[in-house]
Amino acid sequence: MNELIPIEQTMLWGVMIVAFISLIYAFWLWKATIAKDKGTQKMQDVWLAIKAGAEGYLRKQLRTIALVVVALTAIIFLSVYVIPPSEEAVDRFGKNALVIIAIGRTLAFILGASFSTIVGQLGMRVAIEGNIRVAAEAVREDYNGALTVAYRAGTFTGMLVDGLGLLGGTAIFMIFGRAAPDALLGFGFGGTLVALFMRIGGGIYTKAADVGADLVGKVEEGLPEDDPRNAGVIADLVGDNVGDCAGMAADIFESYEVTIVSTLILGLILLHLTGDTFWIIYPLVVRAIGVISSIIGTLTVPIWEKFPIKFLRAKDAEEAMFRSYEVSSINTVFWAFLFALIYAGEWKLALLNAVGVGLAVIFNPLSSYFTSYKKKPVKEIVESMKTGTATTVLSGLAVGLESSVWSVLVICVALASSYLLYQGQDAIYALYGVAMVGIGMLSHTGNNVAMDSFGPIADNANGIGEMAGVGEKAWKIMAELDAVGNTTKAITKQIAIASAVIAATSLFFSYVTDIGNMQARLGVEITTSIRISTLDTVIGFLIGGALPFLFSSYSIKAVARGANLVVEEVRRQFRIPGVLEGKVTPDYAKVVSITTAASQKELLSLTVLSVATPLLVGILFNVEALGAFLAGVILSGQLLAVFMAISGGALDNAKKYVEDGHLGGKGSPAHRAGIEGDTIGDPLKDTAGPALNPMIKVVNLISLLAAPVIVKYQGTLGSWIIAGILLVMTIWAIRKSSTPMEHHEIEAYAEA
Amino acid sequence: MNELIPIEQTMLWGVMIVAFISLIYAFWLWKATIAKDKGTQKMQDVWLAIKAGAEGYLRKQLRTIALVVVALTAIIFLSVYVIPPSEEAVDRFGKNALVIIAIGRTLAFILGASFSTIVGQLGMRVAIEGNIRVAAEAVREDYNGALTVAYRAGTFTGMLVDGLGLLGGTAIFMIFGRAAPDALLGFGFGGTLVALFMRIGGGIYTKAADVGADLVGKVEEGLPEDDPRNAGVIADLVGDNVGDCAGMAADIFESYEVTIVSTLILGLILLHLTGDTFWIIYPLVVRAIGVISSIIGTLTVPIWEKFPIKFLRAKDAEEAMFRSYEVSSINTVFWAFLFALIYAGEWKLALLNAVGVGLAVIFNPLSSYFTSYKKKPVKEIVESMKTGTATTVLSGLAVGLESSVWSVLVICVALASSYLLYQGQDAIYALYGVAMVGIGMLSHTGNNVAMDSFGPIADNANGIGEMAGVGEKAWKIMAELDAVGNTTKAITKQIAIASAVIAATSLFFSYVTDIGNMQARLGVEITTSIRISTLDTVIGFLIGGALPFLFSSYSIKAVARGANLVVEEVRRQFRIPGVLEGKVTPDYAKVVSITTAASQKELLSLTVLSVATPLLVGILFNVEALGAFLAGVILSGQLLAVFMAISGGALDNAKKYVEDGHLGGKGSPAHRAGIEGDTIGDPLKDTAGPALNPMIKVVNLISLLAAPVIVKYQGTLGSWIIAGILLVMTIWAIRKSSTPMEHHEIEAYAEA
Repeated sequence: MNELIPIEQTMLWGVMIVAFISLIYAFWLWKATIAKDKGTQKMQDVWLAIKAGAEGYLRKQLRTIALVVVALTAIIFLSVYVIPPSEEAVDRFGKNALVIIAIGRTLAFILGASFSTIVGQLGMRVAIEGNIRVAAEAVREDYNGALTVAYRAGTFTGMLVDGLGLLGGTAIFMIFGRAAPDALLGFGFGGTLVALFMRIGGGIYTKAADVGADLVGKVEEGLPEDDPRNAGVIADLVGDNVGDCAGMAADIFESYEVTIVSTLILGLILLHLTGDTFWIIYPLVVRAIGVISSIIGTLTVPIWEKFPIKFLRAKDAEEAMFRSYEVSSINTVFWAFLFALIYAGEWKLALLNAVGVGLAVIFNPLSSYFTSYKKKPVKEIVESMKTGTATTVLSGLAVGLESSVWSVLVICVALASSYLLYQGQDAIYALYGVAMVGIGMLSHTGNNVAMDSFGPIADNANGIGEMAGVGEKAWKIMAELDAVGNTTKAITKQIAIASAVIAATSLFFSYVTDIGNMQARLGVEITTSIRISTLDTVIGFLIGGALPFLFSSYSIKAVARGANLVVEEVRRQFRIPGVLEGKVTPDYAKVVSITTAASQKELLSLTVLSVATPLLVGILFNVEALGAFLAGVILSGQLLAVFMAISGGALDNAKKYVEDGHLGGKGSPAHRAGIEGDTIGDPLKDTAGPALNPMIKVVNLISLLAAPVIVKYQGTLGSWIIAGILLVMTIWAIRKSSTPMEHHEIEAYAEA
Repeated sequence: MNELIPIEQTMLWGVMIVAFISLIYAFWLWKATIAKDKGTQKMQDVWLAIKAGAEGYLRKQLRTIALVVVALTAIIFLSVYVIPPSEEAVDRFGKNALVIIAIGRTLAFILGASFSTIVGQLGMRVAIEGNIRVAAEAVREDYNGALTVAYRAGTFTGMLVDGLGLLGGTAIFMIFGRAAPDALLGFGFGGTLVALFMRIGGGIYTKAADVGADLVGKVEEGLPEDDPRNAGVIADLVGDNVGDCAGMAADIFESYEVTIVSTLILGLILLHLTGDTFWIIYPLVVRAIGVISSIIGTLTVPIWEKFPIKFLRAKDAEEAMFRSYEVSSINTVFWAFLFALIYAGEWKLALLNAVGVGLAVIFNPLSSYFTSYKKKPVKEIVESMKTGTATTVLSGLAVGLESSVWSVLVICVALASSYLLYQGQDAIYALYGVAMVGIGMLSHTGNNVAMDSFGPIADNANGIGEMAGVGEKAWKIMAELDAVGNTTKAITKQIAIASAVIAATSLFFSYVTDIGNMQARLGVEITTSIRISTLDTVIGFLIGGALPFLFSSYSIKAVARGANLVVEEVRRQFRIPGVLEGKVTPDYAKVVSITTAASQKELLSLTVLSVATPLLVGILFNVEALGAFLAGVILSGQLLAVFMAISGGALDNAKKYVEDGHLGGKGSPAHRAGIEGDTIGDPLKDTAGPALNPMIKVVNLISLLAAPVIVKYQGTLGSWIIAGILLVMTIWAIRKSSTPMEHHEIEAYAEA
């Protein structure tokens, strides 16, 4: 990087230091969490069962991940040999460029996969360490203590995401300089792939257990949530951790990473065009500013409830978290403007960062409008509950469909801001502007992940309390924290989707500019844009749009199937004399192993679909059709993801409204309709919807990685052979996902 | 048309004659239907109530349609003044071109709207004349007689569609020659607009009545379908007519028309390019061949059950209709090839027609795979019914999501055939090829509409029988015909969606080529393709994709709201002493007027959304972003439409399977889950899904019409004022559709 002036070199080192500070802060949060007391023996017994279940699941999943990562490592290493390294790499590394890039990209891939795994696994473990301690604090009747522990344990994951994300991206850039995109793509792909595994597996697990346990426990037997007589209850609590903690953390980590990747790809083109290095340095520094803001913000959470100035005082835990988010936002926007003006002389960059920050903030009232029972949409669902399940579900689906439109419009406004700011200039500026929105939007990932992880921690604490039988006051504290967690979880879910879309859109733009560069290097005809007015691209576009539908279909089916198995098992255990009377402890582990098996079954096939279909479209048609394919995936993926997330959330809250004593309260016909509506909404909002985020990113990354190979070998015998292999893999995946699991398969998975 | 040789002139006159033959055949079918006996007085009493309800609804709808058509007539007339008439028009009409095109387009618009209205209104009236006669034949225990009357009454509508469609398109071409597209667009737009009204209104009507009547009658009170004590039962029977007959007929009429419009637009470009006139004449003649094939095919229906060659003999009414479809298909394909080879010397055209014919045929096994209880998908739903409503609905949604993928793939194969046939040639050939697929696909509209209308006719006959209390044997005949009608209706629904997509794709391609021509004429920069790799187009694209979601949300909400009102009213009437005992006749008319009001409320707002949003995108951005918008609408519209149609169909059949005595049969918990699943699926398959077909076509047509105006006046003050007005209209529409109807509104609608 001989173009960088010394101060820029220092800035990069500064960014590295911030990354380490973030990790040190995370380490401190961990220590502070486990220093707390673990409560009574009875609570610890419940907790150990959850812990064992979650760790067992993670071990199984890790094995599958390791298998795939090893297989892909070889392919990624060899892939570098089929096309010459980039000019930038040759400039930098001379005749060793080939080997260095091969090794570099492979290591980056492994690093990305490892970081993503660490975020998911470590985050979940600390969350589990946290939940028992939250319960213990609640038993000691210390509301603020419980809140602090829960939030700190959640923040651990948030700062881990921030630290590792910033560390990975910056380090790779410092080593590879202008050749960084080559390695960064490997880094991003590794991380996204693992995130995909965690999202799919965790999502299916959590809802198969939840739906199954609820259908027999709540609907058939009329037991309360988390009743210890229900054999599915531990699996349900485990599910909250593997779904909401591990899956979400890995997913957001990836969006954080992918926005850096696309920013650097687009930034390097601008650097080439203008000679200015700030296109690269600026976004990294802004991210570092964001990390510091997150640290400051998250540290302020405990103070807002007793803040001296009444006007700013938070009236509950939820508001305290929002207040801390606002602190972070103001801090980031202020320093970003200052830095942009002084260093880059480009206020537009900071304005777009601010748009991104604002985007993350605006999804709060937007989600809330469509999912809060105080607002019109959920009120209408409640109205429909009077006439039964069918009208309830229809209203819920309609709310979800409508909300997806508004979510798209908000994203359009963000895109339009970049369009307007750079109107009249070369198109690349506006595309880079979108990446800047992404940089801003994810700069407070620390806060977002903290708020998200807070959910399952509070939920599990509540479950432990319920099962161990704690006092009235402790129970109230935990119930309240649980409710707060439900809201914060719902908000971060929306942000996760929107950020995945912004990240994918930036990747898509990187794809468009990248293929042009490669084609120029290979001396073939250059694709300067992706058209959808030719037949081949329309076909690619249609297939791309269909993929999220296929994906959702299979993940919903997997939940329904898993839930059916859980229902059968829980029913069987209820028939054992003494279980329903609470005299015989049910076999929780059996249900845990069923849900683990159900969630593992779809992992490979859904991943194969995400990787094979874009490659097939690229090889059978061309890179332009593949671009149209990506556009189709982003469009229908975004719409479906929000539709499903909000339908589920709105139905959930409509049910809670009745449970609060309206329309006859618990046990009334309206409540029954509410429970059924919620059960239908659950896999939509927690499995199918969230699984689309990493999928959207995976298809974009694999396309970026494969594009040069496709451009070079299109139409050769080898390409047809590979297309054949991919087709066989796709058919295998479709067959596997469309077939229900047999009992002997469950046992095979359980034994493995 | 001085380029046409005499034999071509003769061909055109031949096409006109075929159109008239089709209308004469339709007239004969009508006369043959009403010549039959109307049965007992009791049956006639029920029938008169249905007739009065349906006619009342149509009158109200006609008023709204007339209002909109008059308003738009003025706009369309004046629109011609803002841009100079096309060169072709000037060539043909000299200095009178402006006035002639203005009048011509306006008249074409009125003609299109009138034809569509006639098809819907007349078709439904003859269907109603038919249903009582089917019931009467069944009472006389004449199975073949009942089948023949039902099929003939349905075929009336089919041949009316064929005749008017062929007549309109050909006549306009004969009058305007090369300037035909100008007028044809008006014709297509008028028809599609009316189809949109009929689909939205009919769809909401039929399901608000059905869901409402079922929820109280079946679920709450345990009464059978069509029980005379249920105050909602007449509204339900009326709904079948206004939804399945009027709505579907107008919709398919439009696809028939729109494929001619886009073929002529693309064909004229090829004529310009090659000098060959067959690009225009050939498709019209093939359509005429199709009409003759339909006449032959539909005439053969009664013979297949007693066909002398056993191998070809049909074992039931369903197979008889398929056999007749096959006769039509073979006939069309044979003559198309012969004609293509002898006249055009282009076998490829006939091959693409054959692909289109095959496309209509292949949706039969495809729909059947996902909706028949003999196949895996519905079997899995049935399996889920054991664990309750929630898993049932989830499985149903998953089946729908999956089926939409296969439906897209089939369409992709059709598109790919044109791509492969014309590879290496100018892109326009392949686009024209897609239009040829559309010409083939809709050439047997006569048979399709006949099979579709058969459904509500048999359904209503069954309802009349049930309410009037007929004998066991008559009841069995009607029940069997009803079941056949359910299947044929489901198949045509899929074909209607696919044909709408093919029609819209051809329109989209016409749009792309058309804007280029206009820009050349105006001397501005030419848009040669629609890119989705720039920010403005991505925004257009995202908004386009969101529109079908908004549309679906509002139509589902409208049904849920309407059903809620019906539930209240039916419950109220059940509380009147004597109604539940069958001693007091309920007030059927009250429910009819409620559903009429509920369905009218959304008509204007949803139409405004379909017309205003594309114009807004075009004006605020540009015609390229508008093109991307259209692509987004087609993609998500197609996926959503199939998803909803198949989810509903699969859930319906899963319920029927239980009603046939499986899993405990009627009254079992599985049956309850089935009824609730079906009730959720109903508005998806009969309201929201089908309404998307005309919407997709409307947005494409309005964009084609508005494109020259946008190109010319982009950025002027006038364009901003119009954008402002459109924005206000859009906000009004959104507010109106998102607000539930108040009781005083119902009364206002009822009085109006």
